[in-house]
Amino acid sequence: MDHVKKGLEGVEVLTTRISYIDGDKGYLEYRGHDIGELADMDLETVSYLLLFGNLPSPEEFAAWSSRLRAERAIDDRVLDIINTCNLNIEAMDALRTAISFESHCDVDLKDSSREANIRKAIRLIAKFPTVIATFWRINNGMDVVEPDPGLSHGANFLYMLRGERPSDLEARIIETDFIISAEHELNASTFSARVTASTLSDLHSSVISGISTLIGPLHGGARMEVMQYLESIPSSEAAEEYIKDQIANKERIMGFGHRVYKTYDPRARIYKELARLIATEHPEERWFRIAETIESTVHREFVEKKGKPIYPNVDYWSAVVYEYLGLSPRLATSLFAIARVSGWIAHIFEQYADNRLIRPRATSIRQS
Amino acid sequence: MDHVKKGLEGVEVLTTRISYIDGDKGYLEYRGHDIGELADMDLETVSYLLLFGNLPSPEEFAAWSSRLRAERAIDDRVLDIINTCNLNIEAMDALRTAISFESHCDVDLKDSSREANIRKAIRLIAKFPTVIATFWRINNGMDVVEPDPGLSHGANFLYMLRGERPSDLEARIIETDFIISAEHELNASTFSARVTASTLSDLHSSVISGISTLIGPLHGGARMEVMQYLESIPSSEAAEEYIKDQIANKERIMGFGHRVYKTYDPRARIYKELARLIATEHPEERWFRIAETIESTVHREFVEKKGKPIYPNVDYWSAVVYEYLGLSPRLATSLFAIARVSGWIAHIFEQYADNRLIRPRATSIRQS
Repeated sequence: MDHVKKGLEGVEVLTTRISYIDGDKGYLEYRGHDIGELADMDLETVSYLLLFGNLPSPEEFAAWSSRLRAERAIDDRVLDIINTCNLNIEAMDALRTAISFESHCDVDLKDSSREANIRKAIRLIAKFPTVIATFWRINNGMDVVEPDPGLSHGANFLYMLRGERPSDLEARIIETDFIISAEHELNASTFSARVTASTLSDLHSSVISGISTLIGPLHGGARMEVMQYLESIPSSEAAEEYIKDQIANKERIMGFGHRVYKTYDPRARIYKELARLIATEHPEERWFRIAETIESTVHREFVEKKGKPIYPNVDYWSAVVYEYLGLSPRLATSLFAIARVSGWIAHIFEQYADNRLIRPRATSIRQS
Repeated sequence: MDHVKKGLEGVEVLTTRISYIDGDKGYLEYRGHDIGELADMDLETVSYLLLFGNLPSPEEFAAWSSRLRAERAIDDRVLDIINTCNLNIEAMDALRTAISFESHCDVDLKDSSREANIRKAIRLIAKFPTVIATFWRINNGMDVVEPDPGLSHGANFLYMLRGERPSDLEARIIETDFIISAEHELNASTFSARVTASTLSDLHSSVISGISTLIGPLHGGARMEVMQYLESIPSSEAAEEYIKDQIANKERIMGFGHRVYKTYDPRARIYKELARLIATEHPEERWFRIAETIESTVHREFVEKKGKPIYPNVDYWSAVVYEYLGLSPRLATSLFAIARVSGWIAHIFEQYADNRLIRPRATSIRQS
């Protein structure tokens, strides 16, 4: 038998054509396209790329976009479920339950053909933002806002969430957010979605496995924790001493380091530029200055004391962007889910297309 | 980087103390106890063993059993959700949704301490049978039957399902069924539950990941398929020709072979004895005779033509037992879930206790 490193670190468990990461160079591409090139597109184009392997022609894009926009509304029974949800729960709990229930309403429930799965995929990608925004409005005692098919995927989400249309800059930023968080090879939630799909379980169940896994604080939950951490720092002036104390006390620094990247995460770099951009147009510059102060202090301290730098990860700079968009930390993980569902589905389809049941072994320590 | 076999076949990805399999000898133990020894106990005792690592003392058993029996009832809001379910869905869809919603009603929702997780575990193990029986009664237009705390875990399930108490023999058989299907090392659903738990996601989410994965026809769905297959064979007299034709046509024979066992699956052996036992007391002997004819024909044909035998697996003989219990093939996967939830939770607790994020890599094929 093969024995491997704990947490499957560095173990290549399957083959993918969906994304490519060079962790040493800080490079990421989806389907042969550099993440920097994709960041300026729109989520509809990028979800097409992820699912089908190529950028859409203008005709393909028009059809895909109109299908995604037509499927944004949620069934009244799903709305009832969200309404029944305990006010004490979080958006990801509501998403997991609502998507599980949504499958019961899907007309293609019992059809697992590729065509039916594409129809289900469109509904899932389209409805994730609606479920989250609907939950959030109800949870905060506000009227539900219907989706607007005239708006892009990102702008429509902010509109449903806030009840007013976002600025052009905000719309651009949320669109880029959804694109650069859409896919990242075999992260834990994508891997669990593929394990589920490898039993030939249905698309909804496989996506629910992804949702369930993203919830964890070592994965999607990290963005919320970085936001809460940033909010706990009173000012950029206080940030340097604050972080030095933390390092001296060997406390965990939120939002630094990554299993795969040994240099600057290319997504963190893009999020940092988005944060810089929105900070200049925003009355509150604090978040960017706090985050930059922490980054440079951590960098300096680690180089000086340990001889090697440590880099902020994607959760770190995305959290800063979310602060500028006025989003609650309680929404951070669900924003990640709205983005990542396209990547999950691309991987589930890839698993179905060349499947082998994922059934490893354990090293058993027998009791006497 | 390490490269491993597809489907992680034969790769030991983590360490466990929960079960031990010798696939060559056809041997299985939970926590140091041979499965044959455990089969005559009751599910409450075995779930305690799985979760805590040792058999309970009489006092521990009394406390554990009374807590499990006290938690069988489901919240009215969960009942409402099951009532709202589309009649077209299957028991596992309802279970996935109901357990996701049930977490919203759990008073320990936001507490992830070990003590709170044990309370949640008791509720999950106790409520799985109630959710399934309640769904089944509603789905078939019958009144819901309240749980009876005077009955064992298995007998109570059959009572809630049918509305009348099972015979002693039926009660013994369903109890053994739940015990011998409770745990099996890193099967796909347990592995996905551990991937989810490795992000430090909550207990309910990790269990839902297990449910979602068990649904697949290459895993929990297989028992349903074996039942449907058995039901398609008109008589034991016809079985031999039927199966020979299938082998000649290179069709897939349902319920034979296993990734780990290279000899007779010890669980299949126990299920076969249960089937033999109930067949002698049952007016309908057909199922046992059909199944035995298929088994001996397949064995003979494989030894003669391929030089090596192929053995029936756990899904094969459990399906025969379910036929004798008068259970619908539509319930087969959910019976498996009722049993396996104890194993999932034991593994999730083991993951929490010594965690490392499970985040493998993929071999990326780059597009030009």
